[in-house]
Amino acid sequence: MERYDLALIGFGGVNRGLAELIVQRGDDLAHEMGFALRVVAITDLRAGSLVDNNGIDLVPLLATEPHAMSFAGLTGGSADPRNEWVIRHVPSDIVAEATYTNPIDGEPAVSHVRWALESGKHVCTTNKGPVALAGQELKALAAEHGVSFEFEGSVVSGTPILRTAQRLFGGLQIEGVQGILNGTSNYILGRLADGLDLQAATAEAQERGYAEADPTADLEGHDVQLKVMILASEVLGAELSREDVSCEGISALTSTEVQDAASKGLHWKLVGSAKRRADGTVDARVAPQALPAHHPLAGIPGAMNAVAFDTDILGTVTVSGPGAGRLETAYALLSDIIAIHERHHASGSGAPAHRVLQEALRD
Amino acid sequence: MERYDLALIGFGGVNRGLAELIVQRGDDLAHEMGFALRVVAITDLRAGSLVDNNGIDLVPLLATEPHAMSFAGLTGGSADPRNEWVIRHVPSDIVAEATYTNPIDGEPAVSHVRWALESGKHVCTTNKGPVALAGQELKALAAEHGVSFEFEGSVVSGTPILRTAQRLFGGLQIEGVQGILNGTSNYILGRLADGLDLQAATAEAQERGYAEADPTADLEGHDVQLKVMILASEVLGAELSREDVSCEGISALTSTEVQDAASKGLHWKLVGSAKRRADGTVDARVAPQALPAHHPLAGIPGAMNAVAFDTDILGTVTVSGPGAGRLETAYALLSDIIAIHERHHASGSGAPAHRVLQEALRD
Repeated sequence: MERYDLALIGFGGVNRGLAELIVQRGDDLAHEMGFALRVVAITDLRAGSLVDNNGIDLVPLLATEPHAMSFAGLTGGSADPRNEWVIRHVPSDIVAEATYTNPIDGEPAVSHVRWALESGKHVCTTNKGPVALAGQELKALAAEHGVSFEFEGSVVSGTPILRTAQRLFGGLQIEGVQGILNGTSNYILGRLADGLDLQAATAEAQERGYAEADPTADLEGHDVQLKVMILASEVLGAELSREDVSCEGISALTSTEVQDAASKGLHWKLVGSAKRRADGTVDARVAPQALPAHHPLAGIPGAMNAVAFDTDILGTVTVSGPGAGRLETAYALLSDIIAIHERHHASGSGAPAHRVLQEALRD
Repeated sequence: MERYDLALIGFGGVNRGLAELIVQRGDDLAHEMGFALRVVAITDLRAGSLVDNNGIDLVPLLATEPHAMSFAGLTGGSADPRNEWVIRHVPSDIVAEATYTNPIDGEPAVSHVRWALESGKHVCTTNKGPVALAGQELKALAAEHGVSFEFEGSVVSGTPILRTAQRLFGGLQIEGVQGILNGTSNYILGRLADGLDLQAATAEAQERGYAEADPTADLEGHDVQLKVMILASEVLGAELSREDVSCEGISALTSTEVQDAASKGLHWKLVGSAKRRADGTVDARVAPQALPAHHPLAGIPGAMNAVAFDTDILGTVTVSGPGAGRLETAYALLSDIIAIHERHHASGSGAPAHRVLQEALRD
């Protein structure tokens, strides 16, 4: 059976979730998918780094409270994250990048991904930064080194959006894509419709764990802007910068306005969209819209996300599901690993992937 | 480049639609997907049969009004459909079955599919009958003969439902599936909510081309029942007979009832569902349900269809899109052909598929 050795870069909610999935259902996965997973390295800004070429025992790590996690005292551990050394030199097959999103230049995640691909390692990530801001460069680098760069979770958590477009729409022309791509703002708009004001609705979203302490990126559409850039590239083949995607958030909407619209059958939603114009260029934007009830995004409730693809033959096909959540997002990484397996090894030779890569590293 | 020779069984809306797609975008498909399509045989209950081993010119056929179509006077044509002979003996790679659905025993479509698979030909179909009523036998037959039996369009037209479950949910446990699987009844329920009575709403659905002259199968849930059987088998691995799926339609609902519910935020929908019970068996049913606004099927408007998958890690993921339409359903056949190509030939040898099969037939 194939076995993939993983390096987890960042050990916050998402990569901890991946470790949990590996512990809880590694055996099921091996049975169902035909491969085993082992974690050989973990790095984290606060916890440091931990390396064990024979596989890290994840159970005690998962039993430790996140804020109390420190690798310094453990065998193979260090207080220093040593990201570049771990990514480049610890023998692993797949690097799972799940550090924080930097919306300006994507660093340090862009470097993490670059180091991994240069070292002949596959990369999966849920981080919007490198995909939105350096996607072209990193995809070319992956192709050059014959490895995969997968990032389903950079758009709508574990909900399969990019793979729906890539794998299930053969022969269709996709003319545009529009989505509810931020659960926090969708939840808040729902509460405005219930009569709460923006401040109270935002506080409630924070209590429920949807919104960050600083909700600006959710309220002002910046989170959605990066996701629109990814969708425009992956679905329409358009490489856009942030300046190309006009961005308006929901903070100017009032409860009265949202309720008035609802009484007329209109649902205010924060919509991120990218549409091909007649001249072949792409119009991409983030803006609140009052959608009629028959619009495929009008009924998307609470913190749920959805993407509607406008196609030539099928008209609109919409996929909705969770847009956040620790295990939901960790599943996106798992689905990326499955995609890597399918592409490189499912039909493949007898040699386990990690062995092939380790041999390559020796050269 | 690969080329697939097709036999079209039934030349009503769906296979005419497939012929249109081949004429309109055969070149694009060849460029995008790496294969060419050619129709070498067509049979139809009313028009007869038409065979040309060098490829039928589809353009004049598509220019003929469907009701005026007759193959008898054409070279290679006959007033007799000669289904068994065409399926078994005309050299083709893929048989596209799109005759009428027989909800009792699936015939004659079951025989059409059986003959094709026995002859070593791949089958794609949009016909619920053979899939719901003889799916196990036919899948085993396909496996025995090393060919594919594909039927995406038997559930929700060209909207990718079965392939979402098969290809994009690796590592997930699917605990249940529920759907709006009949556009006619969903349209009618929407019009009851607008204040029309059942008779007026049904007449309107007929005028718009959604409902058949005899709308019983739509109104009483029989159409949905067969689709639930297919979903239960494909998604939950449960082989059910029609008797296992309790079935209640919408004909007992009144406009008053639907409007009263709407005033309380409840949306009446005809839901087909299959859920795994704690003991591992499957509870499958068709029944109208008053869904709360946050239910993923509550907001599915008009004649649109949707399927919500309940998964362990992701919670509910919903796919919505067209559930009918001539070209939309023809696209399901095209997506099946793409799946056949990917499975058998995409990575494959140099020999065109049709040549391999023709050589096999000579033995």
